[in-house]
Amino acid sequence: MDFQLKPGERLDDLMTNGYHLIQSEEVFSFSMDAVLLAHYATVRPNERVLDLGTGNGVIPILLTTRTRHPLKRIVGLELQERLADMAARSVQGNGLNHLIEIVQGDMREVTAIFGREKFDLVTCNPPYRPIGQGDPVKNEHVRIARHEVTCTLRDAVKAAGIMTKSGGKAAFVHRPDRLAELLCELKCVKLEPKRMRLVHPRVHQRPSIVLVESIKNGKPDLKIDPPLIVYDENGQWTEELETIYGGSAN
Amino acid sequence: MDFQLKPGERLDDLMTNGYHLIQSEEVFSFSMDAVLLAHYATVRPNERVLDLGTGNGVIPILLTTRTRHPLKRIVGLELQERLADMAARSVQGNGLNHLIEIVQGDMREVTAIFGREKFDLVTCNPPYRPIGQGDPVKNEHVRIARHEVTCTLRDAVKAAGIMTKSGGKAAFVHRPDRLAELLCELKCVKLEPKRMRLVHPRVHQRPSIVLVESIKNGKPDLKIDPPLIVYDENGQWTEELETIYGGSAN
Repeated sequence: MDFQLKPGERLDDLMTNGYHLIQSEEVFSFSMDAVLLAHYATVRPNERVLDLGTGNGVIPILLTTRTRHPLKRIVGLELQERLADMAARSVQGNGLNHLIEIVQGDMREVTAIFGREKFDLVTCNPPYRPIGQGDPVKNEHVRIARHEVTCTLRDAVKAAGIMTKSGGKAAFVHRPDRLAELLCELKCVKLEPKRMRLVHPRVHQRPSIVLVESIKNGKPDLKIDPPLIVYDENGQWTEELETIYGGSAN
Repeated sequence: MDFQLKPGERLDDLMTNGYHLIQSEEVFSFSMDAVLLAHYATVRPNERVLDLGTGNGVIPILLTTRTRHPLKRIVGLELQERLADMAARSVQGNGLNHLIEIVQGDMREVTAIFGREKFDLVTCNPPYRPIGQGDPVKNEHVRIARHEVTCTLRDAVKAAGIMTKSGGKAAFVHRPDRLAELLCELKCVKLEPKRMRLVHPRVHQRPSIVLVESIKNGKPDLKIDPPLIVYDENGQWTEELETIYGGSAN
């Protein structure tokens, strides 16, 4: 491993395949949501994958561990130059340049960047909150990653709809309070929701995360999974969550 | 109690307030779905309620037990003459004629029957399956109640949208595989989904039922509840399900 760290950056262990990730307190750090999405999406060997709004590149790096046989190509698209630069250095440091390409660009302009219907799988962990909602954030990098400053949910779903091949998949992670909006936006661009899972901190609590996978031009038939519970009654991670963070190919 | 039973009919105990219900093997019998919906909907004293496709009237009868102070009026609309007749006799037998009115009519013609925006709460347990899907059914009565022969999901949601006052609520129970469709149809008629609960037979199984309550002209903000689990690890009803079937005012 040879990671080129810049001032203020640290190297975090992804606890999967020995991979590490360059992160910084000054910009958005990855959360459990990204890990869960990278694990939830249906990944098949030899496919082309696009991660929209890839941030520091955690989803593309984790996706490489999901199949024993490699994916053809994973592209991570990130608007913010600083994050795209961190992501590219993490890809390089993990020796994944042959699999992952980080592209700096705006997901509202995906057609100009990539064309149309070019990917078998599109993943996206979009900003969750409309502008002005939620806690005040530290700086512009975090604000753009968390709030719909440069990209609304509709923008993200629209980009996924354009980039996903017919019969291909698009997987999103979002907040449950926006589930109705997410499902409707997906249906609007012919990304038919087919799988969904709610993530509850504890079994008796409301969900904090929702995972949805859609199929481009699929028939309506949503399979909802059993709830994913994060903590057991002793406050420990459940076995299933441990397995997800273990990160072996499944 | 003085229930007028007709040939082939039986009297079932609703295990709530001493209420009973006339049912028959030959027509649709109520299921757990109806009980859960009657318990999930937000019920306030002195409100006007409409139950669309009321069948044998189980939802109106159970709704009367939800508040200590009575509802103003509950109307049950049922297309099938035989079911409407059974429902009316159950209402009479339980001494609820002062609260519940059963109307025979088609929910696709609600405006002609009731006008517009006349109810504070609309409940609906619609037919779940498109025509031709699912197990073959015994007879025409059951077919109409279970399959979208005379009423599609869109028809039911449209009727609820017309009948609900601005700021009023509309609550649906349906199958999880049609959740995306349900949420989108609701949003289409300005019934904004605000509460949702998935019902899982066991905690590690997929949900079999989904409950959704919407507010007419509400702002988008969906609160998803913790999962409702039917059976515990010993195969017994969970405490929460026992409480729901206990049926006391809450």
